[in-house]
Amino acid sequence: MSRYFSVKYNSLTPYVPGEQPKDMRYIKLNTNESPFPPSPKALEKAAEAAKRLMLYSDPECTELTRVAAQQLDVDPEEILFTNGSDEALNFAFMAFCDASHPAVFPDITYGFYPVFAELNHVPYRQIPLSEDFTISLEDYLAVNSTVFIANPNAPTGLALGLDAIERILQSNPDNVVVIDEAYVDFGGESALPLIHKYDNLLVIQTFSKSRSMAGARLGFAAGCKELIRDLKTIQYATNPYNVNSMTMAAGIGALEDDAYFRKNCLAVMENREWTRTALQELDFTVLDSVSNFLFAKHSQVSGGDLYRKLKEKGVLVRHFAKPRLSDYIRITVGSKEQMEVFLEKVKEILEEIP
Amino acid sequence: MSRYFSVKYNSLTPYVPGEQPKDMRYIKLNTNESPFPPSPKALEKAAEAAKRLMLYSDPECTELTRVAAQQLDVDPEEILFTNGSDEALNFAFMAFCDASHPAVFPDITYGFYPVFAELNHVPYRQIPLSEDFTISLEDYLAVNSTVFIANPNAPTGLALGLDAIERILQSNPDNVVVIDEAYVDFGGESALPLIHKYDNLLVIQTFSKSRSMAGARLGFAAGCKELIRDLKTIQYATNPYNVNSMTMAAGIGALEDDAYFRKNCLAVMENREWTRTALQELDFTVLDSVSNFLFAKHSQVSGGDLYRKLKEKGVLVRHFAKPRLSDYIRITVGSKEQMEVFLEKVKEILEEIP
Repeated sequence: MSRYFSVKYNSLTPYVPGEQPKDMRYIKLNTNESPFPPSPKALEKAAEAAKRLMLYSDPECTELTRVAAQQLDVDPEEILFTNGSDEALNFAFMAFCDASHPAVFPDITYGFYPVFAELNHVPYRQIPLSEDFTISLEDYLAVNSTVFIANPNAPTGLALGLDAIERILQSNPDNVVVIDEAYVDFGGESALPLIHKYDNLLVIQTFSKSRSMAGARLGFAAGCKELIRDLKTIQYATNPYNVNSMTMAAGIGALEDDAYFRKNCLAVMENREWTRTALQELDFTVLDSVSNFLFAKHSQVSGGDLYRKLKEKGVLVRHFAKPRLSDYIRITVGSKEQMEVFLEKVKEILEEIP
Repeated sequence: MSRYFSVKYNSLTPYVPGEQPKDMRYIKLNTNESPFPPSPKALEKAAEAAKRLMLYSDPECTELTRVAAQQLDVDPEEILFTNGSDEALNFAFMAFCDASHPAVFPDITYGFYPVFAELNHVPYRQIPLSEDFTISLEDYLAVNSTVFIANPNAPTGLALGLDAIERILQSNPDNVVVIDEAYVDFGGESALPLIHKYDNLLVIQTFSKSRSMAGARLGFAAGCKELIRDLKTIQYATNPYNVNSMTMAAGIGALEDDAYFRKNCLAVMENREWTRTALQELDFTVLDSVSNFLFAKHSQVSGGDLYRKLKEKGVLVRHFAKPRLSDYIRITVGSKEQMEVFLEKVKEILEEIP
């Protein structure tokens, strides 16, 4: 830290992204990326847009917003595109949280929420998940706080039903409820249609996972026009040209290639179920994930050991050295071929048990 | 504004980017973009990177940073890449300004500085430019504040010499001095080599202008390792994957094609001088810009009239309806052909004077 660093941030603990080791070529099942390349239409549109890269990108994301709004059955004024969904989350912490609107979220969830809260000097409370890793609805009723729920949640993969979301919305009419749907396309149910019913609902989605565009950085927030206008005020005071024009174009291509998107989501869900069954047969306990990852623990090998031994064998998974989580590994669902290698390596490890 | 918007931001006045009208095809001389497309090498690298878009971008920008550091003769740890230089500026306001480190900058300069200050609740003071629009060195000595200077300045195009910058750095040892060099490649002198001499210097540059990549969103901050580490703390608590992988790759291509970069900068400088002479012959007063735009006023037609009449004739320039600036128009220097059309339209307007 330099002696010039503001006291406002000098105790800030930044987020730690999943490792991206460069020492060898791994089968990467650690950061919930898609095993499939982006749609050829996305690539085509991005290449076309690149030719006009000397011009600023459209700060209104007009065309992308129009296409997305049509497909999602919302009004263009009800969407704001961002530089990845992390930016949408940060904007939401900025716009809708402060000393009199503290944040609440589960103790086990996306690890960036407490960082955003600290960055923005927002008081926050982490609500413990139930014993079985589910979110207990009662804990979020009338909390008088801005609520952040990843649905499905990470790293558990467990989802909350829309009936529960509605009750949380109804019981917190004076606070915004943010539903982070990064993983919703793999079997969850989106709260998007509810933005027309609740003016305190903000839904956040990403193109990183189901649309194979993690490297492009594209996310969005959807909510009633007034909420989106607030986020735009933040955007235009922070980084008006927040989305680059190649990504914007790729986003349009990805949305237009709906068949490709659906096919890939289905393939991930199939591979997930296949992998789940195989793991259970190997004496793993696997949570009921409806996302593109599995959270699993073995009866005899610790999460840390599994992570390390898999890494030695060229397969990266994610391990959280934290209470309640350390027994588990989080396995991104990749292609069938990748999951076959993963299981083969798991079997080797289990056979080595004395 | 929604009833949920935090009081922290509800009086925020966002930045207003230059207009991007879609009603017809204009000759765009209003947002200081390059008239030249990005380097073919940049396009090639971006297309290559797009194929791996399903993977997250490298949050460390390792390869781009390596290439840039080598070319700029600094250490990789002395650079941080950002999603456009606006993000680098915002990070600097966050990291190095607060109640006890207020910001100072000229009253006439990049219009985003006061917005960043307000966004971050940083007290700030705007120091009037001299009568001739130059920055008066004395005004910035021992100001006990974080200094932001666009060099060359906008919309004047006037530059401060490195001797003056050094005196500002020396007289403010307890504050960071941020030199925003968005326009330095068109005849200014960069303060970059000084980062090894002053631990309170932060230099910010962009790929938007001289490298024809406004739509790609790429900028960087350079300074001593400690300052860059502070900015990285902010980056990793805000948006670790802030630069997308297509832009990162395009940046490498742009840096590697140094001949193309130099040729384009020279062409802009030649067109600028040619346009300047032509405007002076038409009775314009033109400031001594060393940037990719000219700031000029006519003896008989107001800035507002020039702007409106040029727009009617299909040429967009920028007009600032503000004290001291309203007589002028800011003209981005485009290609020779664009400047010929611009001058032709200016002549038509002057001939219409009764």
